[in-house]
Amino acid sequence: MSKPSQEGMTVKKGENFDEWYTQVILKAELADYSPVSGCMVFRPSGYAIWENVQNATDSEFKRVGITNSYFPIFIPERLLKKEAEHVQGFAPEVAWVTQAGGSELEERLAIRPTSETVMYEVVSKWIRSWRDLPLRLNQWNNVVRWEFRHPTPFLRSREFLWNEGHSMFATREEADAERDEVMGIYRRITEEFMALPGYMGRKTKSETFAGAEATYSIEHLLPDGKAIQGPDWHSDGQNFSKAFDISFVDEDGEKQFAWQNTWAISTREIGVMLAVHSDDRGAIIPPKLSAVQVVLVPIVNDENKEAVLAESRKLIEKLKGHFRAVLDDRDHLTPGRKFNEWELKGVPLRVEFGPRDMKERQAILVRRDTGGKRAVRLAEIAKEVAGELEAIHGSLFERATKALSENTRDAGTLPELKRVLAKHGGIVRVPWCGKAECEAKMREATGGKILNIPMDQKQPKAGCAACGADAISLANFGKSY
Amino acid sequence: MSKPSQEGMTVKKGENFDEWYTQVILKAELADYSPVSGCMVFRPSGYAIWENVQNATDSEFKRVGITNSYFPIFIPERLLKKEAEHVQGFAPEVAWVTQAGGSELEERLAIRPTSETVMYEVVSKWIRSWRDLPLRLNQWNNVVRWEFRHPTPFLRSREFLWNEGHSMFATREEADAERDEVMGIYRRITEEFMALPGYMGRKTKSETFAGAEATYSIEHLLPDGKAIQGPDWHSDGQNFSKAFDISFVDEDGEKQFAWQNTWAISTREIGVMLAVHSDDRGAIIPPKLSAVQVVLVPIVNDENKEAVLAESRKLIEKLKGHFRAVLDDRDHLTPGRKFNEWELKGVPLRVEFGPRDMKERQAILVRRDTGGKRAVRLAEIAKEVAGELEAIHGSLFERATKALSENTRDAGTLPELKRVLAKHGGIVRVPWCGKAECEAKMREATGGKILNIPMDQKQPKAGCAACGADAISLANFGKSY
Repeated sequence: MSKPSQEGMTVKKGENFDEWYTQVILKAELADYSPVSGCMVFRPSGYAIWENVQNATDSEFKRVGITNSYFPIFIPERLLKKEAEHVQGFAPEVAWVTQAGGSELEERLAIRPTSETVMYEVVSKWIRSWRDLPLRLNQWNNVVRWEFRHPTPFLRSREFLWNEGHSMFATREEADAERDEVMGIYRRITEEFMALPGYMGRKTKSETFAGAEATYSIEHLLPDGKAIQGPDWHSDGQNFSKAFDISFVDEDGEKQFAWQNTWAISTREIGVMLAVHSDDRGAIIPPKLSAVQVVLVPIVNDENKEAVLAESRKLIEKLKGHFRAVLDDRDHLTPGRKFNEWELKGVPLRVEFGPRDMKERQAILVRRDTGGKRAVRLAEIAKEVAGELEAIHGSLFERATKALSENTRDAGTLPELKRVLAKHGGIVRVPWCGKAECEAKMREATGGKILNIPMDQKQPKAGCAACGADAISLANFGKSY
Repeated sequence: MSKPSQEGMTVKKGENFDEWYTQVILKAELADYSPVSGCMVFRPSGYAIWENVQNATDSEFKRVGITNSYFPIFIPERLLKKEAEHVQGFAPEVAWVTQAGGSELEERLAIRPTSETVMYEVVSKWIRSWRDLPLRLNQWNNVVRWEFRHPTPFLRSREFLWNEGHSMFATREEADAERDEVMGIYRRITEEFMALPGYMGRKTKSETFAGAEATYSIEHLLPDGKAIQGPDWHSDGQNFSKAFDISFVDEDGEKQFAWQNTWAISTREIGVMLAVHSDDRGAIIPPKLSAVQVVLVPIVNDENKEAVLAESRKLIEKLKGHFRAVLDDRDHLTPGRKFNEWELKGVPLRVEFGPRDMKERQAILVRRDTGGKRAVRLAEIAKEVAGELEAIHGSLFERATKALSENTRDAGTLPELKRVLAKHGGIVRVPWCGKAECEAKMREATGGKILNIPMDQKQPKAGCAACGADAISLANFGKSY
């Protein structure tokens, strides 16, 4: 059981988002700074969130036939350069190993910013015939992108953790069909586990992943009005399979190149989740992901101490049978002090149990998200707590969905787009003709960008906000983190 | 479903162990070489073994209150140097990042060979009072040790995967008490999941982990007669807590330094397991760890094909309810070809199902380890398969235990030790007085070393094999991988 946290929050979410966010992460003991500039430490309750996201995502991957593997963290420089666009996209952020085992290396080794090149060089030897396809590989690993923008725990760290999925198919049709399967998994993880709503759509060419033909993303909205990209899926076509000779003999005996996709969800998503749900009293962690789901705090005074503690120990055993539950029986802290500490840490549900409750055979459930209290019968505590945790997830998602839609606005013209974005921030739906120069014009005029283009929409009536020509779609536009 | 493997094994385990081992790993598609010299690729069926080891170990860690966390892969050079013995032990094998984000770094960053220094620098800020202890952290990660000895998949790779546990206690008693708990977990994982026997004991001073006061290990025996170290646990005393000021205020208000331990199991253990169990036909993977536990091979000819396949599809659904099971219904391969492929890959149990079995309402179970066949009633197939998998684990462990004890011999004098080791290899129990110069003398005379010293043994009657003085213990001695 850890020490009482240093004093609580001193900044309000609505007043200084950046400082508030940092306080939440540090004071809730979810993460810490490290001696390596720009790299973060995942503390146990922060890492537990990632473990739970990983387990949920991984079991969905396995269900659809994606298998895990592990490739080296090092990429020889010549390999990284093998796909031209790809290396242009990543070279500026690469960390290079130049010395090892006491001597200078003849060739620099990149720390993987992503593993396409090292994986495909090897995988090309594994594939010979159409019978070897599809091959759907994933790895859960650490990657490094040496950014110079201000590092922020979870949201921007030079080293971060993620899944990187890499699949190879015999036909474009099969490859394209994977999009909805994988993005569907990511949507379930973000909505049903992280309680995070978002807009799914296709990135514009200028925002497409380096080396890919098309990128699809889920875009979230941070409380400060900035958009931030969540999980994504990339259609690589045959760009990499031709560069790395990932070829196979088809049923007619012809040589063909594989069609490839890649996809990822990273620990950045945890930062988005905490930023969206947490409040002025500290972190709020959705019940399915919280290291501790329920904390039991006995309310004792000197007369009844032993009796209440004895009952509490029985109660916690019962709760542990169903939930990740903790008994806070520290005797040097007042209940009030304990309440504050667990609220700061974001534990979704508190159970209070005192002498009166003992007499009434009840316990008091206190929700972290609303502060709502109610008494429940001890005989039904497991059922009641399960229901309350579900209710908490539901209202977190509902509240976040409401905030997203309230901060999604429309604009028909460039001046309107500029005005709406400057006044409210958030996400603006704007008609776009599909031309890169109009995209650029909107960017320059507003400092925002096209986040993505919602799928399956009807062609809008309005003309392009930039040039007035027929719009091919309404784009999600906003300033991006 | 992957392609038919290239032809089977061409080398015998007893004739050329090194070449045989490499063939097993590559032909069973467990691992592959990589474009980075000395680093390996974990292919899906090889990585699945690690995932299963991880899950089993991690749930035991969590059960005893060890929590996971994640610290940066980079260690600034000044930090690595903070504990003198420690840096001496690792500096020669470090890979250094000297350039990042397009510019030269002012200070070199080590890729972690192990994380003591970067963890303790941060953790020292988390601990203030005795109430913050014990703190028992673990991380599952990748580490890099730039060795120049011949790389071998799993057994020796410059990057490998492991757990590194790091714990801090208020008293030496509590810290020491952790040894049997953690080594007990490792013993259960190696014996009950990997079917690997070994000798547990304490390392001599000269073999103790850099920076530690004492190291305990499980030592295994490879089929070529060389010993190899398995999981280990280190008592660090206060060496690191003093170097990194991991101090706390005790119940009397006095400042104290924490007592620390560290422990690890790595992917090298998978190589030991495969080397010990596999045979001249390919890999043998213990049932609890194999990605595929049961493969169902339908035996069809043109008349009965549809009927047998239809029944097989029902059967595989039933098996999938209980096991990691696969139906091999590829129609371009003969059953014999399929048998060879799955035997090469080490799947512990094969189920054959043909027209006659369909009539008899039975299936044939074929064990990978013994080749033993028996017919079982379809009505009881789940129970029968479960029993067979348990039996396979049991005989693998029994066979390995027999091999270990048959290759453990005694020697009372230096000439005898030299003779026994030269003639048989394996592990030799030799009386030792505890003096470093006698240990060195034995090493020089034989090319072997003291592996470890079994715990809780009676003082031997014999005198030290090197100097004749009273022996404090019988040491496990052998040539080591």
